[in-house]
Amino acid sequence: MGNFLTKFFHAELITVGDELLKGSTLNTNAKFLGQKLTDLGFRFHAHVSCPDQVEVIKSKLGEALERSDLIILSGGLGPTPDDVTRDAVADYFSSPLVFSKSQYARIESLYRRYGKRIPSIVRKEAMFPRQSHPLINRFGIALGFSIVFKHRLIVVLPGVPQELEKMYSEQVQALIVKHFHGLRKRYSLIVKTVGLSEPDVMSRLKKDFFDVPFDFGIYPQPGEVALRLYADQRSIIRRLKEKIQKRLGKDVYAFEETSLSEVIGRILVQKKKTLGVAESCTGGMLAQEITRVSGASRYFKGGIVAYSNALKHQFLGVPQEILKKFGAVSEKTAAFMAQGSKGMMEVDYAISITGIAGPDGGTRKKPAGRVYLALATPRQLKIWEKDFWGDRIQVQTKSVKKALECLWREIK
Amino acid sequence: MGNFLTKFFHAELITVGDELLKGSTLNTNAKFLGQKLTDLGFRFHAHVSCPDQVEVIKSKLGEALERSDLIILSGGLGPTPDDVTRDAVADYFSSPLVFSKSQYARIESLYRRYGKRIPSIVRKEAMFPRQSHPLINRFGIALGFSIVFKHRLIVVLPGVPQELEKMYSEQVQALIVKHFHGLRKRYSLIVKTVGLSEPDVMSRLKKDFFDVPFDFGIYPQPGEVALRLYADQRSIIRRLKEKIQKRLGKDVYAFEETSLSEVIGRILVQKKKTLGVAESCTGGMLAQEITRVSGASRYFKGGIVAYSNALKHQFLGVPQEILKKFGAVSEKTAAFMAQGSKGMMEVDYAISITGIAGPDGGTRKKPAGRVYLALATPRQLKIWEKDFWGDRIQVQTKSVKKALECLWREIK
Repeated sequence: MGNFLTKFFHAELITVGDELLKGSTLNTNAKFLGQKLTDLGFRFHAHVSCPDQVEVIKSKLGEALERSDLIILSGGLGPTPDDVTRDAVADYFSSPLVFSKSQYARIESLYRRYGKRIPSIVRKEAMFPRQSHPLINRFGIALGFSIVFKHRLIVVLPGVPQELEKMYSEQVQALIVKHFHGLRKRYSLIVKTVGLSEPDVMSRLKKDFFDVPFDFGIYPQPGEVALRLYADQRSIIRRLKEKIQKRLGKDVYAFEETSLSEVIGRILVQKKKTLGVAESCTGGMLAQEITRVSGASRYFKGGIVAYSNALKHQFLGVPQEILKKFGAVSEKTAAFMAQGSKGMMEVDYAISITGIAGPDGGTRKKPAGRVYLALATPRQLKIWEKDFWGDRIQVQTKSVKKALECLWREIK
Repeated sequence: MGNFLTKFFHAELITVGDELLKGSTLNTNAKFLGQKLTDLGFRFHAHVSCPDQVEVIKSKLGEALERSDLIILSGGLGPTPDDVTRDAVADYFSSPLVFSKSQYARIESLYRRYGKRIPSIVRKEAMFPRQSHPLINRFGIALGFSIVFKHRLIVVLPGVPQELEKMYSEQVQALIVKHFHGLRKRYSLIVKTVGLSEPDVMSRLKKDFFDVPFDFGIYPQPGEVALRLYADQRSIIRRLKEKIQKRLGKDVYAFEETSLSEVIGRILVQKKKTLGVAESCTGGMLAQEITRVSGASRYFKGGIVAYSNALKHQFLGVPQEILKKFGAVSEKTAAFMAQGSKGMMEVDYAISITGIAGPDGGTRKKPAGRVYLALATPRQLKIWEKDFWGDRIQVQTKSVKKALECLWREIK
C-alpha cells in the first residue's frame, strides 16, 4: 500500500439518470471524471449509475460516504419532475433548499438572449442546499453545489457533459485539490503508437518492463494502440519512458494526448509542406480526419472523394483503360489517384485510398477489406496493398489510419 | 405498479474493469445491454462498475442477487493476472473451474489462422465454473457462462464490446427470454426528428401528450432530436405514434433506429436520382456521413473537399472574382460550389457547405459558426445562411446535419 507518506484517497461517482440505466445514452461523464480523478491520484471502490429516484440516490450516497472520501454525483438537476438529485441530496443532509440570485440572473439573461420567457419550472435549477457551497454554471441552466461532511467532499454537478466538463475544469478540480491535503498526484505517461497490434506492443515491451510497480493500461483502437502508465514516483515514469523509447521507438508518434493528424499537421507546418488526398471507399473519412485539426488550412489544400469511376477519371485523371483493365480497386488506380491529385492540387504530398469497405462488393480475388493505398511525394510514389479485417466502419477507419501512418513515417 | 398480470423483473449490470473506473474507456457495454434489457421489459435498480478485484466483484454480485432477478457481469475474462471475474464468480458459488475442450479447440484454430502459438496463459479463458452453462465465444478467446441460482439468472460475458454484443444477440437473449416466464415485453417506439431543438419538440408535443402512462426519453444531438417511448400496451404506443405524426409530422424522418443518410439513400435509390457534394469547413464529414451507408455508390457519385480557395476555383468553377469580392464564406460561393459540382459530376442533386468552423477565422461580420449551405436541384438553386453555436466539431456536425436535412426535405 505504499510507505507512511502515501495516503490514498478514494473517489466514487454516482451518475444519476434513468437514461443511463436504460442504455439510451453513453456514460461519458464517468469516463471524463474517472480520468481526471485518476490523474489527481484518487483510487476507486466502484462507480454506480442509479435511477432518478430520491430514495435510491440517498441510499447510494450513504453507501458511498462509508467508503469514499470524494463523491461526485451528476445528473438529475434539470427542471422536470424527474430531476430529483437536488432534493435527494438536500434531504439526505436535512438541509433546506435556498435560492441563488446570481444563478437565476444568469438564467434570465440566457433566455433573454434567445428571446424566450423563463418557464417557472426552471426556478428550481437555481436552488441549492443551504449548507452547501453553490457552483455557478456558466454553460447551462442548473446550479451545481458542493458539501463538506466529516472531512468528505460531495460535489453535485449537472449531467449535461459539456456543462459538467467545463464546470469541473473551471471550479471543481481546484476545490478538490484544496480540500484534500496530501493528495498524492500520480505521475502519468501517455504513449501513442501506430502500426502495432496489442500483442505486438506487449511482446516488444518484454517481461522485464513490468518489474517495477506501476499501473498499466493498454488501449487498442483500429490501427493504433495507446498506453497509459501511472506511477507514484517521477523516476519510475522516466525510466519507463526510456524503455518505451528503446523498444517501441519508431512506432511511437506522441507521448501526449494528441492525434496522428495533429502530429502530421505540426510537421507539415514546420517543413512548410502541403497535402492533398484522394479517396474512394473511405468516403471522406481521410479528409475529415485531417481537417479535425484547427488550422489544417495551413497545409491541407483539399480532397477528392471519387466514389464513382467517372469521378476518378474526371477529377483525378485515372485513365479509362486502367479502370477497365485493373479495376477501381487496384495498385494502378491507387497510383494514378495519388499522382493525379498531387499534380492537380499542386501539393507536395498526396495520399490515395481505394478499396472494398464491405460488407458487399468483395470477390475471391479481392475480398471485402482489400485496400490499396498510395503516397505521392516530391521524389517518389509508394504503393501498399492491405487486407483489413472487420466491418465496414472498421475497414474504413483502419484504411485512414494506415494512410496517415504511411504519410507520417515519410515526413517525420 | 401494474395489475396482477404484470410482473416486473429487475436486471443489474456489473461491468468489471479498472479501465472503466479510471475513465480510460467508455462503457459501451452498459449502454448496449441496458437498451436490450429495457426492450425485453426489465427494470433496473442500479448499474455498477467495479475494479478487477475478487472480493469487490463477489461483494457486488452478492448485493445484486439480493435485489435483482437477472445479473450480467462483463469484463475481466481475459488471460492476464488482472482478469479475475471468472475466479470471483466461481468462488462466490463455491464451484471449481472446469475446462471446455470445444472453446479451446476454437482458440487453437484462431491462433493457427494467424500463424501464432497459443500462450499458456490463454488456457484459463477456456475454463468455466462446473455448475455453470458455458457460452461459446465465436468472436474472441474468452468463454462466457451462465448460472441459474434460486430462480435468478447470472450471465458472465467478455468485456470486449464486439464479442459481448454478438454473444448477447446470438445466445444470451434467447436464454433470458426462456428463463423468465411472463417477461412482459414492453412496446417501444423510436422517433427520429431533424431540425427541431429539444424545447421545440416538448412544446409541440404539448402537455396532454403525457396524460397516459409511458416511459419517455428525449435525446438531443447536434441538429437532431430522438425520442424513445416505452409502454406496456401496444394500444398506448399506437395512440402516441398518431399524436406524434400529427404534432411533429413533417420533422420526423423515421420511426425506427436509422440515420438521416440511410433514409435519404433509400429515397434516392427509389427515385433513381444521384447526388454529389462540395464542402469546405466540414472537411469531408458530409461525404463521409453519406458514404457510411452500405450501397451508397448506387446514388452517390462523390465529393470535393475544397479546403483552399484554389480548389474551389479549380474543381468547382467558383470564379476568382467571386472569391475575391465576397469571400470563400458567402452565399455566392456556396451557390457556385453547388452548381459547379452538380454540373461537373453530372448529378441530379448537389449540396455545398462553406463556413467558419472555428475557433479561429471568425470576424465581426462573419463570426465563427457562420455557415452557408446551397442545394442545386434539377429545377432550382436554394441557399441558406446559418449561425451555429458550439465548438469546431459541433459547428461541423450541425452543418452536415442541416445540409442533409435540406436535401431530405427537398426529395421526400
